[in-house]
Amino acid sequence: MPSFDVLTVLPGLFSGFLTEGVIGRAIKSGKVSVKIHNLRDFTTDKHRVVDDVPYGGGPGMVLKPEPIFRAFDHICEERGKKPHVILTEPWGETFTQEKAVELSKKENILIICGRYEGVDERVKAIVDEEISIGNYVLTGGELPGMVIMDAVIRLMPGVLGCRDSLEADSFSDRGLMGYPNYTRPAEYRGMKVPKVLLSGHHKKIELWRKEKSIERTYLKNSELIKKLLKEKRFSKEEERIVREVIRKFSDKVKRTNDGNRSV
Amino acid sequence: MPSFDVLTVLPGLFSGFLTEGVIGRAIKSGKVSVKIHNLRDFTTDKHRVVDDVPYGGGPGMVLKPEPIFRAFDHICEERGKKPHVILTEPWGETFTQEKAVELSKKENILIICGRYEGVDERVKAIVDEEISIGNYVLTGGELPGMVIMDAVIRLMPGVLGCRDSLEADSFSDRGLMGYPNYTRPAEYRGMKVPKVLLSGHHKKIELWRKEKSIERTYLKNSELIKKLLKEKRFSKEEERIVREVIRKFSDKVKRTNDGNRSV
Repeated sequence: MPSFDVLTVLPGLFSGFLTEGVIGRAIKSGKVSVKIHNLRDFTTDKHRVVDDVPYGGGPGMVLKPEPIFRAFDHICEERGKKPHVILTEPWGETFTQEKAVELSKKENILIICGRYEGVDERVKAIVDEEISIGNYVLTGGELPGMVIMDAVIRLMPGVLGCRDSLEADSFSDRGLMGYPNYTRPAEYRGMKVPKVLLSGHHKKIELWRKEKSIERTYLKNSELIKKLLKEKRFSKEEERIVREVIRKFSDKVKRTNDGNRSV
Repeated sequence: MPSFDVLTVLPGLFSGFLTEGVIGRAIKSGKVSVKIHNLRDFTTDKHRVVDDVPYGGGPGMVLKPEPIFRAFDHICEERGKKPHVILTEPWGETFTQEKAVELSKKENILIICGRYEGVDERVKAIVDEEISIGNYVLTGGELPGMVIMDAVIRLMPGVLGCRDSLEADSFSDRGLMGYPNYTRPAEYRGMKVPKVLLSGHHKKIELWRKEKSIERTYLKNSELIKKLLKEKRFSKEEERIVREVIRKFSDKVKRTNDGNRSV
């Protein structure tokens, strides 16, 4: 069974994550093992201190090296081998779906949850990679740890109930946006579902969805469409749609880009 | 008091978030109000069904419009005004620190947690913006909801204990990476703290930190350094360091970029 170990000063933050939803079910049914370790359990002093002031002065506190190294030794022994070690860190490599796929093939992963002010630099001697989930500042590395586990665990065999849910990714694998979704009722508060979706005409529905997906993607990220076109990543039918969308919206996209530039 | 309302099918996922760490303390001390609403409470059928198959067929289930609109009406009434409505959505605008700052000035925010397969498109009639936290696929919009709240709440007045923690952002505001941090002991498992940090020489320490920060940033994202240089966002001293770093590492950065290009 693939395993995650998490090292954190806030183990309580994970309580909902371990029991609810897709991940909670994956843990309960033994598809994956997730163990949360309290960094304070690896201190040796009476007050269980995990941080200290930075050498050289400055704001914030720095996570001390000893409890982290001790926890690492303990986890290696417990699992019987060295895990792949991730440090959540605001200046790490940005997490992507490709990285999630790569990590879903690892047997043992240890996530060390950083704190914004920092972790003693020497800890990086045991770290395989530093990961950030985006360009924003958070209070700690616990939410990033959950985000990484969520993205990785859902890709593991047997975790998603229905294979369809993963297959739907093949469209988004190229970075294309999803098409608009509708469910019953056909009319709600005066808003109607597009007729084509009620037609039962599968070929037409598929075409409409492709058009909407390509149109949305082009309006938000025209560079991606141009790149995919150049790399011949579209089917013949998709390519026809792409050319039509570019013809229809290139003026609009150009105006938006000019607008952005002037901001 | 600023408020967040969250609409979700998995209210239990938020249990740790509401009580632990910086955010838990901010809620407890009344700096911010966070209320989690269970979408199922706004259904009217016996089985409390919140989703249905998509019109036109295809994989996954779509969140029905009625419970969401009913919840929205209820929250507007309860808060006495229309909140700023965010839908967490894989194809939304990518969340950034600038967006966090912007949202920290709003009085009332409602986060509707999307599901990967989708939300009935008509819901977007009440949505002010769709936000994604990054280019990866998650099991639902709950973790993105927590990430957005965490980034926004920590910016609210009085939430971070010590003003220093926010001031330290001014360096990262320009997108520059943090400098390496060290705390006691001065030597651990054969690894020593850089001598300059033990010197007590404040000017030298400050200089060393600027050098390390600029060096790290240049090695990871040389374009940003060039952009900041062009926009004259560096002090005179910083600019001297930047030119020295470019002189020292431009060959290395060029090789890395060439390597990336060939992948």
